[in-house]
Amino acid sequence: MGVEFEQQPSVELSKVAVSDTHGEDSPYFAGWKAYDEDPYDESRNPSGVIQMGLAENQVSFDLLEEYLEKHSEAASFGNKISSFRENALFQDYHGLQSFRKAMASFMEQIRGGRAKFDPDRVVITAGATAANELVTFILANPGDALLVPTPYYPGFDRDLRWRTGVNIVPVHCDSSNNFQITIQALEAAYADAVSKNIKVRGVLITNPSNPLGATIQRSVLEDILDFVISKNIHLVSDEIYSGSAFFSGEFVSIAEVLEARNYQDSERVHIVYSLSKDLGLPGFRVGTIYSYNDKVVTTARRMSSFTLISSQTQQLLASMLSDKDFTEKYIRINRERLKNRYHMIIDGLRNRGIECLEGNAGLFCWMNLSPLLKERKKESELALWKSILYEVKLNISPGSSCHCSEPGWFRVCFANMTERTLEIALQRIHDFMEIKKENDVQQQ
Amino acid sequence: MGVEFEQQPSVELSKVAVSDTHGEDSPYFAGWKAYDEDPYDESRNPSGVIQMGLAENQVSFDLLEEYLEKHSEAASFGNKISSFRENALFQDYHGLQSFRKAMASFMEQIRGGRAKFDPDRVVITAGATAANELVTFILANPGDALLVPTPYYPGFDRDLRWRTGVNIVPVHCDSSNNFQITIQALEAAYADAVSKNIKVRGVLITNPSNPLGATIQRSVLEDILDFVISKNIHLVSDEIYSGSAFFSGEFVSIAEVLEARNYQDSERVHIVYSLSKDLGLPGFRVGTIYSYNDKVVTTARRMSSFTLISSQTQQLLASMLSDKDFTEKYIRINRERLKNRYHMIIDGLRNRGIECLEGNAGLFCWMNLSPLLKERKKESELALWKSILYEVKLNISPGSSCHCSEPGWFRVCFANMTERTLEIALQRIHDFMEIKKENDVQQQ
Repeated sequence: MGVEFEQQPSVELSKVAVSDTHGEDSPYFAGWKAYDEDPYDESRNPSGVIQMGLAENQVSFDLLEEYLEKHSEAASFGNKISSFRENALFQDYHGLQSFRKAMASFMEQIRGGRAKFDPDRVVITAGATAANELVTFILANPGDALLVPTPYYPGFDRDLRWRTGVNIVPVHCDSSNNFQITIQALEAAYADAVSKNIKVRGVLITNPSNPLGATIQRSVLEDILDFVISKNIHLVSDEIYSGSAFFSGEFVSIAEVLEARNYQDSERVHIVYSLSKDLGLPGFRVGTIYSYNDKVVTTARRMSSFTLISSQTQQLLASMLSDKDFTEKYIRINRERLKNRYHMIIDGLRNRGIECLEGNAGLFCWMNLSPLLKERKKESELALWKSILYEVKLNISPGSSCHCSEPGWFRVCFANMTERTLEIALQRIHDFMEIKKENDVQQQ
Repeated sequence: MGVEFEQQPSVELSKVAVSDTHGEDSPYFAGWKAYDEDPYDESRNPSGVIQMGLAENQVSFDLLEEYLEKHSEAASFGNKISSFRENALFQDYHGLQSFRKAMASFMEQIRGGRAKFDPDRVVITAGATAANELVTFILANPGDALLVPTPYYPGFDRDLRWRTGVNIVPVHCDSSNNFQITIQALEAAYADAVSKNIKVRGVLITNPSNPLGATIQRSVLEDILDFVISKNIHLVSDEIYSGSAFFSGEFVSIAEVLEARNYQDSERVHIVYSLSKDLGLPGFRVGTIYSYNDKVVTTARRMSSFTLISSQTQQLLASMLSDKDFTEKYIRINRERLKNRYHMIIDGLRNRGIECLEGNAGLFCWMNLSPLLKERKKESELALWKSILYEVKLNISPGSSCHCSEPGWFRVCFANMTERTLEIALQRIHDFMEIKKENDVQQQ
């Protein structure tokens, strides 16, 4: 335009905007990017990266598809277009009554009926990501902390910290007791926070654990509950993989422990759940908070205005989840298939000389490559991760991205691909181990 | 159980959880509750409360229904159940490419093609509620402020302040110039913030205005833009009623002003949009942020993980909004119907001796009942509001709930009911005014 404008410093953004607590620079997300740039495809890109860093459940889609074929009305406003009107307008933050009822009942079914859930305590959120953030906003002030056992889901760095200003204080667990949480570890983390003058507001556990792929034992849950009672703090139990435990009886929900205690001290306990993993519907953004604390329920509902679930999606899922024949069959077959997949990968790795933590749940296994490390250090782990990503062309997640304090462990997802692709991944690991062995022999 | 437990103080919640900045105790929401407890129904509850406090658009539902009847595949995974799989898994925070394209093009259509939108700058959020909060998180730190012209949408007290810790500093507008925003009012608000040692990060305008039901003139937009440039701060333009301006030509988007300036200084401008009002789909939770600032786009996308739109809903709307015949017809007829409704209520009120601000947009009118006030005070306004709510049985929103500094104004919604119900509401107002007149005569 020929006009000279005065040069101004560019307009400022907030501290949250310029901070890196969103965590997207971690190897966890870097691996996703490497996959996105060179994705494996059997015919079009057979030498591409196989995505084993994504905890997605694709093994039971045919069951959902079968349901939708039989019940096409569920997806299309119940055959009556007139219900579209009601549905499209429905923005009440309580959520559809039918949907909350169906969710509560699905959560009971997953727990084999050993715990009861009241639909009026179900708060809806657009995914567990939002649910975990929302609970953190309600329980802790900026600068306060939640204790989180390691290794933990890398996304927690974003979900619990980024916008809330809350800290995560790690509860260090290690392989000496199969990464189980102990009172000693909890006390040490608590003392660590206190020594830094940080107020601890609660403990957040993931049961079944991501990335361990294992459930937490009842006795450990009892210990954790006693710990939070003794400190007068909260307990958040993220149970988004509860329907992905291979045997219903091996998963104990915190809800069962509370029931056995007649709900004594339950006002400090909050459960997070979602349909992204157990039903394999991450795109639908369906999360919930179930709290035993009335004030938390009321406040979480008000806050859920920022993250409601589309009423179209609530309606579809209300139909699907209130069909008991379908849910019973789905839960049973999905468990069976995940277990088979798990054994396929565990046995495949064992045949190549690689051991995993003994698991019983989830969409991944926790693989021990520490014997391959040059040094027992994070740097060696990341060097190994890089060669697996860029040479072996497998995207797996290094334990350090999950804040594991013991180097050499990796999370390997197995439910987001076909069996055929899993076989190819195992073949690549086999070849890699053969080369390793040869190199080792040459170096001797 | 017979056991005595040591009495502990109950477990604490965060400051955010116990604060009342969620604003639900305002008369704006109290009126909703009164309606919920005694809702008008022509046959079942003819003396119930008529809801005129809800900015919902129900006048064009038949057009959406007609589209869905013709295109049932749009709602049901494109007739191919196989697309369900892809769709259910899709959780990329960029959103479906087809949906972002359709949104950008719909936003252009509403502006009569006078502004262009790049789909790659469209960030998706679960409603405008989330969009406004998200933008605030990105632009301002806790303790900082946004300047917001009054009267403003009561929900902003929650959306902009509650979880962000950001302040709203009101820019006082009044009836002397039809509540238009002036440089003087902006400067006064800015000086007020500075005197309190509060850092101002931006101005947030709503165009067309809620509650005024009027668009902002181009010259005023130019002034506001010059103001934010001179202070080196941001401008957020909430344009969620842009498709509800009665004549396309009477609405000028900030995007058009930027285009005319060759996008000079555009990196400080962010537009919020949603389909809740213009398409009448609040239940579907569809909001967007359109920013001209690359860093804001990247950060907002990352943050949108907390508030994504169901992929099922994205898919349905991608189909609907990319059907140009449908959108052209919808926008035209919806405008026409809203204008007719507007005239119906304006004329009806005028016949009863009540004047409204001259409007040209939105789902409400801004009604002047100041002649009825006992005193020119907020208390008198609220007393009048109560008698209208509990005696006349109309839920309208008092200006004070919108932070209007001049008592006696009320927002009256007209698009969330049938014409028949609107007539009954007008009849009730007529009767109320007659009684008022009689009382006045008796008091003389």
